[in-house]
Amino acid sequence: MDFRLSDEQQAFAQAARDFAIGELEPHAARWDAECQFPREAFARAGALGFCGIYAPESIGGLGLPRLDATLVFEEMAACDPSTTAFLTIHNMATWMIGSWATAAVREAWGPALAAGEKLASYCLTEPGAGSDAASLSTRAEKRGDAYVLNGAKAFISGAGDTDVLVVMARTGGAGPKGISAFVVPADTPGVTYGRKEDKMGWNSQSTRPVVFDNAEIPAGNLLGNEGEGFKFAMKGLDGGRINIATCSVGAAQGAYDAARRYMGERKQFGQPLASFQALQFKLADMLTHIVASRQMVRLAAAKLDDGDEQAATYCAMAKRLATDLCFQVCLDAQQIHGGYGYLKDYPLERLVRDTRVHQILEGTNEIMRVIIARQLLDKGADIR
Amino acid sequence: MDFRLSDEQQAFAQAARDFAIGELEPHAARWDAECQFPREAFARAGALGFCGIYAPESIGGLGLPRLDATLVFEEMAACDPSTTAFLTIHNMATWMIGSWATAAVREAWGPALAAGEKLASYCLTEPGAGSDAASLSTRAEKRGDAYVLNGAKAFISGAGDTDVLVVMARTGGAGPKGISAFVVPADTPGVTYGRKEDKMGWNSQSTRPVVFDNAEIPAGNLLGNEGEGFKFAMKGLDGGRINIATCSVGAAQGAYDAARRYMGERKQFGQPLASFQALQFKLADMLTHIVASRQMVRLAAAKLDDGDEQAATYCAMAKRLATDLCFQVCLDAQQIHGGYGYLKDYPLERLVRDTRVHQILEGTNEIMRVIIARQLLDKGADIR
Amino acid sequence: MDFRLSDEQQAFAQAARDFAIGELEPHAARWDAECQFPREAFARAGALGFCGIYAPESIGGLGLPRLDATLVFEEMAACDPSTTAFLTIHNMATWMIGSWATAAVREAWGPALAAGEKLASYCLTEPGAGSDAASLSTRAEKRGDAYVLNGAKAFISGAGDTDVLVVMARTGGAGPKGISAFVVPADTPGVTYGRKEDKMGWNSQSTRPVVFDNAEIPAGNLLGNEGEGFKFAMKGLDGGRINIATCSVGAAQGAYDAARRYMGERKQFGQPLASFQALQFKLADMLTHIVASRQMVRLAAAKLDDGDEQAATYCAMAKRLATDLCFQVCLDAQQIHGGYGYLKDYPLERLVRDTRVHQILEGTNEIMRVIIARQLLDKGADIR
Amino acid sequence: MDFRLSDEQQAFAQAARDFAIGELEPHAARWDAECQFPREAFARAGALGFCGIYAPESIGGLGLPRLDATLVFEEMAACDPSTTAFLTIHNMATWMIGSWATAAVREAWGPALAAGEKLASYCLTEPGAGSDAASLSTRAEKRGDAYVLNGAKAFISGAGDTDVLVVMARTGGAGPKGISAFVVPADTPGVTYGRKEDKMGWNSQSTRPVVFDNAEIPAGNLLGNEGEGFKFAMKGLDGGRINIATCSVGAAQGAYDAARRYMGERKQFGQPLASFQALQFKLADMLTHIVASRQMVRLAAAKLDDGDEQAATYCAMAKRLATDLCFQVCLDAQQIHGGYGYLKDYPLERLVRDTRVHQILEGTNEIMRVIIARQLLDKGADIR
Repeated sequence: MDFRLSDEQQAFAQAARDFAIGELEPHAARWDAECQFPREAFARAGALGFCGIYAPESIGGLGLPRLDATLVFEEMAACDPSTTAFLTIHNMATWMIGSWATAAVREAWGPALAAGEKLASYCLTEPGAGSDAASLSTRAEKRGDAYVLNGAKAFISGAGDTDVLVVMARTGGAGPKGISAFVVPADTPGVTYGRKEDKMGWNSQSTRPVVFDNAEIPAGNLLGNEGEGFKFAMKGLDGGRINIATCSVGAAQGAYDAARRYMGERKQFGQPLASFQALQFKLADMLTHIVASRQMVRLAAAKLDDGDEQAATYCAMAKRLATDLCFQVCLDAQQIHGGYGYLKDYPLERLVRDTRVHQILEGTNEIMRVIIARQLLDKGADIR
Repeated sequence: MDFRLSDEQQAFAQAARDFAIGELEPHAARWDAECQFPREAFARAGALGFCGIYAPESIGGLGLPRLDATLVFEEMAACDPSTTAFLTIHNMATWMIGSWATAAVREAWGPALAAGEKLASYCLTEPGAGSDAASLSTRAEKRGDAYVLNGAKAFISGAGDTDVLVVMARTGGAGPKGISAFVVPADTPGVTYGRKEDKMGWNSQSTRPVVFDNAEIPAGNLLGNEGEGFKFAMKGLDGGRINIATCSVGAAQGAYDAARRYMGERKQFGQPLASFQALQFKLADMLTHIVASRQMVRLAAAKLDDGDEQAATYCAMAKRLATDLCFQVCLDAQQIHGGYGYLKDYPLERLVRDTRVHQILEGTNEIMRVIIARQLLDKGADIR
Repeated sequence: MDFRLSDEQQAFAQAARDFAIGELEPHAARWDAECQFPREAFARAGALGFCGIYAPESIGGLGLPRLDATLVFEEMAACDPSTTAFLTIHNMATWMIGSWATAAVREAWGPALAAGEKLASYCLTEPGAGSDAASLSTRAEKRGDAYVLNGAKAFISGAGDTDVLVVMARTGGAGPKGISAFVVPADTPGVTYGRKEDKMGWNSQSTRPVVFDNAEIPAGNLLGNEGEGFKFAMKGLDGGRINIATCSVGAAQGAYDAARRYMGERKQFGQPLASFQALQFKLADMLTHIVASRQMVRLAAAKLDDGDEQAATYCAMAKRLATDLCFQVCLDAQQIHGGYGYLKDYPLERLVRDTRVHQILEGTNEIMRVIIARQLLDKGADIR
Repeated sequence: MDFRLSDEQQAFAQAARDFAIGELEPHAARWDAECQFPREAFARAGALGFCGIYAPESIGGLGLPRLDATLVFEEMAACDPSTTAFLTIHNMATWMIGSWATAAVREAWGPALAAGEKLASYCLTEPGAGSDAASLSTRAEKRGDAYVLNGAKAFISGAGDTDVLVVMARTGGAGPKGISAFVVPADTPGVTYGRKEDKMGWNSQSTRPVVFDNAEIPAGNLLGNEGEGFKFAMKGLDGGRINIATCSVGAAQGAYDAARRYMGERKQFGQPLASFQALQFKLADMLTHIVASRQMVRLAAAKLDDGDEQAATYCAMAKRLATDLCFQVCLDAQQIHGGYGYLKDYPLERLVRDTRVHQILEGTNEIMRVIIARQLLDKGADIR
């Protein structure tokens, strides 16, 4: 066992921190307030390789392990979890295209996505089937050399602002085996975007429903083979859960850093907040929970990188623990700021709003427990 | 002991519920989104007596106990905690003026305030002295027949939109004994209002800093005697804590009702959410915590009504418990709604944002613990 | 609404406190260590009316409401939850016999039970059907003027040391409607007692399995009518849950009192523990949770006294909340005592061990949630 | 980073598991019930190297890193945390003697201790100075070629049953710099042992106060130099905290394993417990918290092994988190067992009693927060 980051990893994290401080932090509050999707920032991230961190080198990705990706995302999320979370989704979609698209599609989209010149959305969730992804009803029908898509997706991050969609649709019968994955250019005729959702947070990401009305794409836009879509989606979700979890860790670290600083500066009853034992204890617990969350995320990422057969269970545990503990850390940091924590002049309330959704999406934390328990009880897996 | 509401109390609560459903619920989301201060709604509330519930009958108040006031505020907060919370502040200021103002000032302002035709703000908090109210530095200097105020207040609810301010200012030496309370017309020359704060929630209330720059008021605008201001402020805070706590209870009840309804309607994996045991347990705990919070609030209100010497401690306990438990209930109700709970189309995320500040203001929940512990340990009070 | 105790109630509670301090506190540690069932203490309690507090006056009970009973049990549990908890079980059984036994049986047993000269056990739970009481399989077959009982009971408090058993047994078909209740003298031939259980706590109560092997009792020992047993059992359980919950409240109060005292006496780093803010906050929360628990218990007792149709739900909520919160209070009080809290020289560790089982018995706290949720979701009850 | 155990480490853990199942599990309940100190089991552990896992090879220790020691202790604690916890204390004392004793003393005691033929106690805590070790008042006065010890120690594990004591005593002025460490043979004239403490758990370890009344030892029994004692003690405590934390992890794993098994076997309402979603979720959270605790412990152990300057902070975080979360896991596992969890026939209640003290000793979890917060706030350490 070795818990140390290599020099390369540390340098990589430092690059991400520099990027976050230079390119995200100064704008994050405004992007939130104005619900602005910062395309340009993604392009700059792409120039540093952050748009294809674990995408294959063949499309210009860095081909790095998931563990390394968490280092980058964590640093960025400390300044702006919403923008970072979209970046993780884009990374996931880019990796899918880089891994399973036909050569033609891979070449057409891969390099531009890995460079952040083009952006991708991931279309799995449907309005009637939030957590029950396997029951999705969007259909893709093969007609000659094309697939024709019909159906509706909901809660699609970036939809309306991105260039390409990775879409899960049913080509076969009911259940997971009937699902396939497709690459759908965002401007395909028949693809329309609904009203931009008004959300509690994640405002630098547009979220829209997407409707497919006889949207026709070339047959070569299928990822892998028919029927493999759900398998890809689940693989994507494992990574997606680590990514979201690491965004929570980063946000909590950002909130904790702000709270620690504030405790040294702000005085009450003639003393700095740092001198009050109850706040000291709160801060100690905040750090402890951040460190524990980070370890769980890295452990899960390492399991995924190692191809461990229980990787999905570790990802579910990491997502559940980190998003719960780190949301509480953000609340605690906000509380330490008193009334100022409630104002948009400080980042705390934004970090709270942004991390709240991490407990809900990529499978709610209730679904995480279903996933974990199924392994323990139905499968009898002996996980340690 | 008797835990039952009288018929009159039930009717009073029902009137509040009808008002809330008719006048608050249809507009609450918009007032929040547009940061609109709903003057007209307050006037309608005033017509029902809700602007002077415990203000003396001499100024047109209902002269009811605090316990009865909680019934009204709870029902209203189930639809709109932000608007209701301002109403509670207005009630407090109205009660202060009705109780301690000189006859002239009482007559000039009391009836209009009790009727909701005029609105009042409460100016205690200062930028440098959040929780440490006794150290406030705004000064009121007596010059002939007038007091001249200089200083700054922060986080003033309604400031800039209200007609009159109840202001705590220092007329004597350091510490609580040097503080006096004043009635300051909002348009007094020398009173200026700062930028409207951008907040996480409580958006139907404008919040602004207030600056007093040689603001001169008649000497008769003093409440009670010089040096009584802190005593009034603390009395006000005891009631204010019950009010805020009951706003949390109401909001939690509203969130719970929505979650219960949603669990019956929404299906996942082919079954209504109501059939999943883990969600059933969550809902059971939510109700249990609401009922416990409500009991604590009513107990504290009754202690205040009875003039119990430990009333302040009960108020602090009720505020701490109810605002913590009920915020968690709102989060849980949001979680049950999954992704929809994160959207502004549903009230959940607003209830979360609005109740978050209840843990912070009227004395943070950390200050509540300081107040309670001081009684137990320094004073040796035997509270049960 | 009125949260005040009457003078009579206060005097009654004071009598219980005096009894507890005089008769329980000096012996509780020894009874625990030696697993001794204190028959004599029960007789003394009986002399004060504490063995039939809500039993009908016709058998010498005090005929008081459940709310009054909680006052007594709470005071006693502050010194000895285990002994008190048995007393509550005896009270329940005595009330059942006083309420539903035939005249002959009522006269034969009632007065002696109400006086604490005889003691009763309550036999519901079976080894294979812990929480699922309605599936019990002990059978009572009518043969002429007698019933003959066969089957086995588990976890029976007092069994082997008590004089009479109230036994739930099946006279009809499957399900709750087939169950009847019987009064079985403890020395009935065919009734045998298993090995005394070694338990974590509740050591002043013997707990044994009971086996019925053709145990024959007169037909007149039936309580009420055939098929009413489950109804009686459930009524008993409602009161039983309040009783257990109030034992937790009392124990927590005892633990809190000890911790508060200790914080004033014990010094660390040159200061009394009372001067450390983190411990102050802990103590404040402990008291808050005790007060909230007590209110919930009293509310539920009042609902039961009023015959409220949702009384069972309130009892379940009170039992869940109070036994959970108050166990945590006992743990916190133990923690405040540091290493001394782990020693049997102090009462803390005993209070922890004794209150632990309150989360498990009279229906586990998981079953409480099932009961609550069923009302909310299946029955659509609107509980506040 | 690499989270995988090497083959050697896995084999080492397996050896510990085999030992635990063969030598501890069959006896643990009896040793607890009879408060028996299992000398023989320690000797058998010593034969496998488990009495000097990180002691230097020069005295027959294995010279392994702390991380490896946690693997052994965790496996053993799954069966018997009390016995294992004493073994960790013995390991610590053995390591101290192996590291800092003079050659003569090292040779006299080291090999026998490493082999488990002799056993050692660690005497730091004093009755008046629980958490405030630096204020200890036992004195060691140099007289010619000897030190003469006077004073009293409290809560000494193994005292009265062990062969040698590592004693912290004051040779100089007040504060940590005045403390030295000594090796004191247990049968030194002037060393007397008090009454064996009656404890909630940890019953296979005798705990006694130790009194030094002019107890004279050779000057060569000093560890290191005068004044280094507190430094040694703190080094010992860092490791001690990891050891205690890992005992909690092991116990929680044992409790979880039992609960998982029980959920598959026990039926209620006609279904195995494993089919109830609320219990599934509880089990999932239990595992998640065990995994998170284990990671924190291993991280802290690795920091200690690496000589990281913040190792002490990581040890404090690991101890706080693991002992809190894992105690709750034991409670949850007990709860899943219902009434059976309260009986001594099952290991659950013993695991709860044994792990309770881990939150208290080696520095209470409150002291852990003090240690962590001091680094964050006073020292401004940037820990991640």
